[in-house]
Amino acid sequence: MEKRVIGVDIGGTTVKLGLFDATGDILEKWEIPTRKENSGEKILPDIADAIRAKLAEKGIEKEDVIGIGVGAPGPIDVDGVVHAAVNLGWGTFNINETMRSLIEIPTVSGNDANVAALGEMWKGGGKGYRDLVVVTLGTGVGGGIIVNGKMLMGCLGAAGEIGHIHIDDHETDVCGCGNSGCLEQYASATGITRLANRMLEKTSEPSVLRDGEVSAKTVFDAVKAGDAVAIKIAEQFGDYLGKGLAAVGSVLNPKAFVIGGGVSKAGTVLLDYIEKNYRKYVFHGSREAKFVLATLGNDAGIVGAAKLALDPKEA
Amino acid sequence: MEKRVIGVDIGGTTVKLGLFDATGDILEKWEIPTRKENSGEKILPDIADAIRAKLAEKGIEKEDVIGIGVGAPGPIDVDGVVHAAVNLGWGTFNINETMRSLIEIPTVSGNDANVAALGEMWKGGGKGYRDLVVVTLGTGVGGGIIVNGKMLMGCLGAAGEIGHIHIDDHETDVCGCGNSGCLEQYASATGITRLANRMLEKTSEPSVLRDGEVSAKTVFDAVKAGDAVAIKIAEQFGDYLGKGLAAVGSVLNPKAFVIGGGVSKAGTVLLDYIEKNYRKYVFHGSREAKFVLATLGNDAGIVGAAKLALDPKEA
Repeated sequence: MEKRVIGVDIGGTTVKLGLFDATGDILEKWEIPTRKENSGEKILPDIADAIRAKLAEKGIEKEDVIGIGVGAPGPIDVDGVVHAAVNLGWGTFNINETMRSLIEIPTVSGNDANVAALGEMWKGGGKGYRDLVVVTLGTGVGGGIIVNGKMLMGCLGAAGEIGHIHIDDHETDVCGCGNSGCLEQYASATGITRLANRMLEKTSEPSVLRDGEVSAKTVFDAVKAGDAVAIKIAEQFGDYLGKGLAAVGSVLNPKAFVIGGGVSKAGTVLLDYIEKNYRKYVFHGSREAKFVLATLGNDAGIVGAAKLALDPKEA
Repeated sequence: MEKRVIGVDIGGTTVKLGLFDATGDILEKWEIPTRKENSGEKILPDIADAIRAKLAEKGIEKEDVIGIGVGAPGPIDVDGVVHAAVNLGWGTFNINETMRSLIEIPTVSGNDANVAALGEMWKGGGKGYRDLVVVTLGTGVGGGIIVNGKMLMGCLGAAGEIGHIHIDDHETDVCGCGNSGCLEQYASATGITRLANRMLEKTSEPSVLRDGEVSAKTVFDAVKAGDAVAIKIAEQFGDYLGKGLAAVGSVLNPKAFVIGGGVSKAGTVLLDYIEKNYRKYVFHGSREAKFVLATLGNDAGIVGAAKLALDPKEA
């Protein structure tokens, strides 16, 4: 029987699962709901049940599964210990050991952003690079760091929190993390909407943005159409994000930044605004970093998890 | 014959050399001038000559030297290729291979800040930590990063340039790197002097700093004596450096920051100002990082270089 690998990406609402062959091709993917009640105690048993059912359906023996990789939203250290994943209700316990006791298949886990970065390096926009930072511009701003081909996890698995780099001393709104002036407050989907609404209030210039819903998508659509106010908003966004990533670049000297998440659907126009400002602020030794778009979308997590299961040393 | 190791720390004015036993104890240290003329072509031959002379003097055979470690001020990649060390006049070449051809002893090299960080982890203030950042507050602000026990070099050996994190949008003076508003402009010895002179100009409050030379040392001496203006300057310094290191902390999630360089002679009072502001700005997952003083002083470079020669995989 050919060998198989399972990739699991645990989100706050759904758990994505993927069945892979040993080269990383997706054979099948499916989802189950994330049951967060009672401190999320059902999440891992549900995943074990879902995997067992899939293996039975496909006639795959446990012995033919090389391993299970798991990405979860929280700080997870190199041993698989999660240190409070608030979005799932989880406290502190060892994910790898718990999964192994539930289903008797070797399991390796990591922070979801880092695992997704591994996916983009393996099969996505970061292919061919071994030093890269995957920046996810969604509801928040997440970061996954790969150094010399391996995930950088930090001492408590909390590395890559680039959305919470302090970037503006004058901010009065409070970020989800409790601080004020975090990069996420300007460069996430909601951050761009906030910047846009502030700009529209400040100026009386005409703009297509005054006619409908204001969102990251409508802002960048307007930029592409040449709307002057939208272009100013994009400049502001690019200044904030370029400055934040310049700090990351001066620290890590990566070969590439891979930009993903919902906001990245705006396409290469987005990269132009980020890149220009990055080069302005970064130390010259890191000025030549490439900027590319992520390509795996929502699959990055399960693909990276599968990679983790195949090569646990990437953790 | 007992095995020996050589550690070399190349600076802009002098080259420091150390003869070590295999446990990392310094048996002898000495210096030679750094001859930078003609693109620094004499620097490595001078070092080879100095080592040869020392081995002859001590009656040590080449075969008993495990290796030579070299730290140099510039971007040096994992293969030992330096990519333009402007302070030495060097262009691009392979330090490891050049040294081996000059003296036929295995040589491993790395960026001086990273190598010094390795030294502090091995024998200094960072002992016992495997994820740490060594911050050198001297003429400039340097950074050496250790992740899971290994130096983080970046794709071109330019990682750890934390002195050039952009920290102030309103700066009009230009940093040595060509940008404006770099952390180094506020947190280096000269940066603190600049902050102090600006503060003394802005306020008419009495201060002992008005009576003599203004330097990082006199500022922190005045802080210890309770001088109100000096305390304001220290608060400003702490805000800048705490904010910059918070960015580093949110990216890397290190276990500890080891603070060294001339400015660190101020002692633990310095740590208080940095630590307080770090905790204010950093993402909560990285809030518990320890702040300790470096202990090796000018020996960090040769000690780290010796470690590099003993364990080339730390590179």
